[in-house]
Parts: sequence; structure tokens; C-alpha cells
Amino acid sequence: MNRIYSSLPTTVFEAMSALARETGAINLGQGFPDHAGPEDVRRKAAEAVLDGYNQYPPMMGIPELRQAIAAHYAHHQGLSLDWQSEVMVTSGATEAIADALFGLIEEGDEVVLFQPMYDAYVPLVRRAGGIPRFVTLKPPHWKITREALEPVFNERTKLVLINNPLNPACSVSSREELELVGEFAEASDAIVVADEVWEHVVYDGRKHVSVLNIPSLRERAVKIGSAGKIFSLTGWKVGLVCAAPPIMHVLGKAHQFMTFTTPPNLQVAVAYGLGKDDDYFVSMRQELQTKRDRFAAGLAQAGFPVLPSAGTYFIPVDLAPLGVGDDVSFCERLVREAGVVAIPVSAFYEEEPVKTVLRFCFAKSDTTLDSALERLSRLD
Amino acid sequence: MNRIYSSLPTTVFEAMSALARETGAINLGQGFPDHAGPEDVRRKAAEAVLDGYNQYPPMMGIPELRQAIAAHYAHHQGLSLDWQSEVMVTSGATEAIADALFGLIEEGDEVVLFQPMYDAYVPLVRRAGGIPRFVTLKPPHWKITREALEPVFNERTKLVLINNPLNPACSVSSREELELVGEFAEASDAIVVADEVWEHVVYDGRKHVSVLNIPSLRERAVKIGSAGKIFSLTGWKVGLVCAAPPIMHVLGKAHQFMTFTTPPNLQVAVAYGLGKDDDYFVSMRQELQTKRDRFAAGLAQAGFPVLPSAGTYFIPVDLAPLGVGDDVSFCERLVREAGVVAIPVSAFYEEEPVKTVLRFCFAKSDTTLDSALERLSRLD
Ligand SMILES: CSCCC(=O)C(=O)O
Ligand SMILES: CSCCC(=O)C(=O)O
Repeated sequence: MNRIYSSLPTTVFEAMSALARETGAINLGQGFPDHAGPEDVRRKAAEAVLDGYNQYPPMMGIPELRQAIAAHYAHHQGLSLDWQSEVMVTSGATEAIADALFGLIEEGDEVVLFQPMYDAYVPLVRRAGGIPRFVTLKPPHWKITREALEPVFNERTKLVLINNPLNPACSVSSREELELVGEFAEASDAIVVADEVWEHVVYDGRKHVSVLNIPSLRERAVKIGSAGKIFSLTGWKVGLVCAAPPIMHVLGKAHQFMTFTTPPNLQVAVAYGLGKDDDYFVSMRQELQTKRDRFAAGLAQAGFPVLPSAGTYFIPVDLAPLGVGDDVSFCERLVREAGVVAIPVSAFYEEEPVKTVLRFCFAKSDTTLDSALERLSRLD
Repeated sequence: MNRIYSSLPTTVFEAMSALARETGAINLGQGFPDHAGPEDVRRKAAEAVLDGYNQYPPMMGIPELRQAIAAHYAHHQGLSLDWQSEVMVTSGATEAIADALFGLIEEGDEVVLFQPMYDAYVPLVRRAGGIPRFVTLKPPHWKITREALEPVFNERTKLVLINNPLNPACSVSSREELELVGEFAEASDAIVVADEVWEHVVYDGRKHVSVLNIPSLRERAVKIGSAGKIFSLTGWKVGLVCAAPPIMHVLGKAHQFMTFTTPPNLQVAVAYGLGKDDDYFVSMRQELQTKRDRFAAGLAQAGFPVLPSAGTYFIPVDLAPLGVGDDVSFCERLVREAGVVAIPVSAFYEEEPVKTVLRFCFAKSDTTLDSALERLSRLD
């Protein structure tokens, strides 16, 4: 058996959701909304299942969806993408990240990662033969700085894996931060893989800057999006991948033997959804922002020191001022004593974890959020 | 970039389907039926998309489907599986094979493969760090023999990857052949991964014997099935994986960072479908067998020397008696001169390919098969 995988724990998201299922606690851990998702998009999928074609679609995705992806990013992010050579559909963003790591690195290549980070990154980098090098970002602003990048980049750096907006920090990288990453990537001749699954989920009028919007990165970056996150249908597992042709060529090779194709019925519906008018995206953000504000206010009132959330479904709270030094036991206590599941942010670190921050998901009905707040405020 | 992937050609299935799409030729290459698939199963999926839950399901699959898988294999194959520790759902059988290879082998482990084989196997074994060792099976019976196994097994053998029924040979392994594999696997302390996606598609009253039906393999094997193949809905990409708990534990770890989960709406429908009564499976086989016989007779009449097909959607023909020695150029000629796409079987070999065999898919409407036969019979 493989040592890297056999020694891994179950992902914190699954562990905490399983705990919520078993104990009946309110699940503010794993990031998924508790509403049904846009009805028109689901109706398209149902129609495709009933009247459309359910056989193998083209390996890179159905042309209709690849064209819709190019049009969507042209409209929302000003990108100019050739759908035939620069766009691919995968079975979720996680598969896209796996494709990129297995496709783009060789044994011994160094890969730069930013802590805190999604817990799939390190095992995938290691299993692909890469050597992870960590940049640690610090609360409350989690900013990428020249000083932090300098020590980790060198001539062995072949790939940079970045998450923007950054989960679980709930921060959004600025154009300047991305340009800085571009400068270092160019100097090392490294490829930048950007997990941008939260691209549409940004607040307070912010605009997401894609890695492909940075001129120095346009030809050396992979942009990964997620229909599940764009349409609040996290179970759909339709990933959207964009990259310049020489990179995309290799990603297609990794994809063809990882899942080969993605259900065509869901692809048809996502193609439709990506063409929705701006109102849809504006109100999706607006509704979530209202929830964020409501929940942040409630948390503050219940005595939890709230950190800013510029994007994602989440709010981080920093328990250091309360004298809490072990986020994992505090989370256990939350489940036991309050019946609320959160995620301990130390799970997103490989080295020197921050151990005072918890992450709450607020993409839930107001009733659910209110009961959670009520329970949290009763905690001693 | 990774050398193993960057130097790969596009899979022969995609290449030939793309050629069919471009030229308008009749596509008897890639294995997918041209009918819509069972209406009741599709209706269940549509209902789940409309009224059910479209958010992240449990990582190992929804309990309903995992229970249905255990019940299905108990009924059809006499297997006794604990759904909670021995059953997992993946995003298609290809992902399951990738999970098994990345999860179960280490750099330098030897992996036994049987030629001809699905073209994903060798690149995945290599990318996972394994060293492939080949057993070559010979037409027309493609039998696994002790003489063929002896030279490839040794103390470095850690995994055996077998496909039964075997595509593109269209042969079905007997209990004795599997026991022989079990004997060698046990002696080397190797795990056997069995790609059994064609398990229900066997003809002439044959019964599929699963690798988990072999006592010496019950605790050292992985069984991989495919809802897409069971329900003739090849685009659905729902894989069914069974293995003893210590193996399953590691497969789950590989899966959690490969695709993490599989669409819950399709899972609900597959759970329903697996419970269909025997009639469904009997008539599915019967319809396909009638097509096989009709198409085989037509091919013979058109002068193509047909090999037996005991299972799968395919018929192999051996062109050696016609003096053809290059299956790839013959396939090109078929597209150009007859407007019919087939698959050259040499694409399924890594070493010393058989170069005289083509594979035709007969899982198509009678009208399509008849036009294809008409075109083929006009070829000089
Ligand atoms: C793939 S499970 C993780 C879902 C998510 O984005 C999160 O909860 O952080
Ligand atoms: C994953 S494409 C291969 C489909 C199939 O089983 C075949 O055509 O052999």
C-alpha cells in the first residue's frame, strides 16, 4: 500500500460532517448551502437526463459548455480564451487540482504552497512526487509579501499552488499580490495553479482578479473554477479549467486517465447557468453578504472575536483573546456542549499551525443560523 | 511538466470518436449504446435533481447506494459485503482504477498487467511509480495459463490489475483462471485489482465470476464496477468499488483527494436501478446478444473473419487471413473508404502488439448496424 495515502487521516470536512450526521449537531463545518440551488439550472439538468444524451461526452467536455466557460470569463473577468485549446471540464475542482499536480510535476520538483490551505494540496503534491515549500500567511490580513516569498523560491521551484479567494482565511488576493507571485514564478520558470473556486463569492463590491488577468501569468498559469460553488450546487462536481494551450495539452492527458469525462447532463445545465445575467450573480453575493453580516453580528454578540470575511461561505473567529489555545478541543467542546459543528483552522496547516482560529459556514438558512447563534451564546 | 503524461497520445477512444464526429462516419469505436438508457432510472435522477439534495454527499457515497451495492452483489454474485467498511462510490470506474493504483503501490513496486488492456492502465501504473510487467494473452481464446504467469511474478510483485470480462478480447475468465491468478497473488502477497465493469454484459448463459468470489482473493482483491455499463448510461460516471476493510481504508484516502465525492442525484438513481428485478438484466443481455449475433453474421457475410465475443459491447475480427498486417492503417481506410469507425486492437498493447485485430461496437440500433454492414460490404 502507498505510505502517503495509508497514513492520511480522513479529510476534516468529511470527519466533521460525519460527526454532525451522527450527533445531530448543526453543521456549520463543511461548506455547502442548505437550500436547493437555482431551480432553472436544476430543471435544465433534469431535462437533459430525461430527453438528452447520457452517453460518453467528449473527453474535454461538451463544446456547448466549453464555449460557455470562455464566454462567461470574457464577460465577468475580461479574459480572452480559445475554448478549443484553452478550456477543459473536469469532475470537480479537486480532480482538476489532481490533474494539474500529476500532470505538471516530476519527482523532486519543489511546489510552493500558502498556509492555511485546503487539506488536499499537500498529500497530492507529495503523491505526485513533489516537495512542498510553505509560505505562511498571517491573520488578520493574510497578505502575500515579498519577504514571505523570497526564502521559498529557487531554481527547483516548478509549481505554485494558490487559492484565491483563500479558504479558510476568507481573504481575497489583490492584483498586486498576484503580480508579486507572477514575478517570482517567472524568475523560477514555474507554473502557477490557481484554485479560484470562490471567484464569484466575494463581498463588499470586491472584484475577483484571476491569475489569468496577470500578464506575466497568462501563459504560465492554470485557472480552476467550480460550477458547484458558482451555482451553490456543491454536489454537482463540475470543474472548469482554463490554461494556455501547451499546459492544457498536458492537463488533458492527466484528465483522460483520472476520470476521463464528466456527466453530460450536468454539463448541459452548467452551460446554461454560466450564461445567466448579472443579476443572478449580484443577488447570490448580496444574499450571502447579508447572511455574513447577520451571523458576524450574532457571533460578536455571543462573545466570539470575529475576523474579516472578504469572500467564501465562511467567517473565521480568532479565539486567542479568549485564551483558547487548542482549536481542535474547542471544536469538540462546541459539538458536545453547544451542538454546533465548526472547522478547526489548524487542519489547514502543515507546519506551525495557527491554533486559535475556527471557521464557521454561514451559507445556511436564517433559521439555522439563528439556532446556531442561540446555542453558541449559551456556551459558558 | 510530467514526462509520463506530456508524452502520451490522446486515448484511442477519444481520438476515434472525435474522428467520427468530424467525418460523420458511423461510430462503432468507443463503447457506448446509442439509445437513451432505462427511462425509470433516468426519471429517478431527474427527480433527485429537482426535488432532492444537490449538495456534497458523504465522501464514500450515499448510504442508500452503498447498501444497494452490497445487496446487488449479494443477489447477483453471492457476495457478502459490509456496506460500511467494504463499499465505496467513485466518479466512474476510471477514477476507481486511479485510486487503487495511487493508493496501493509505492515507487518501484511491480504490477502485473494482461495484454490486451484498457489504455489507461500503463500510464496510471507508471505515474503511480509502478513497474508494469506484462502477460500477453493470445487470440482466439485469450486464456490465462500457469506458463504465462510464472515468468512475471516475483517477490517485488505488489499488485495485479485484471479486466474481466476482458475488453477488447471480449473473453470471460473462468473460475479456474481466477484461482490461478489468486495462487500467484497469494505467493507474492500481492493485491488483485479487478476491473469488472462488464460483469453484467456476458452472453450465452455465462455467469460472471467476481474476483471476490475466489476464496484466496476475498481479502486481497478490489472489485470495480460501473453503473454506466450496468445501465447503458456510460456518461453517468458512477463507479462501484468493493474490497476488504484494510484495503478499502486506503482506497478511501486516495478517493478523497481525487474527486472527493460523486453527484448525489445520480447516486440516488443508481441505488434504485441496482434493485431492478432479474428481468431487466436478463433482457439487457438478451437484446445485446441478439445484436451481437446479427452483427457477427453480417460481418462474416461481408468477408470479415469474426472472433468469438463472450461479453462486452464488442466483436473482434482477425484480419490476418485477409493478409492485413497493420490494424491502424486498416482502420484509417475503413473511415475513409467505408465511413465506419472501429478500434485497432494494437492500441491495447504495450509490447509486441497483435496487429491484425479490429474491434467493432455492436451496442447500436439495428438501423445503424445495418448501414454499417452495408458500407463494410461495399469495401474492396
Ligand atoms: C471538498 S469539501 C470542502 C468544502 C469546502 O470548500 C470547505 O468546506 O472548505
Ligand atoms: C472510457 S472510453 C472506453 C469505453 C470503453 O469501454 C471502450 O470503448 O472500450
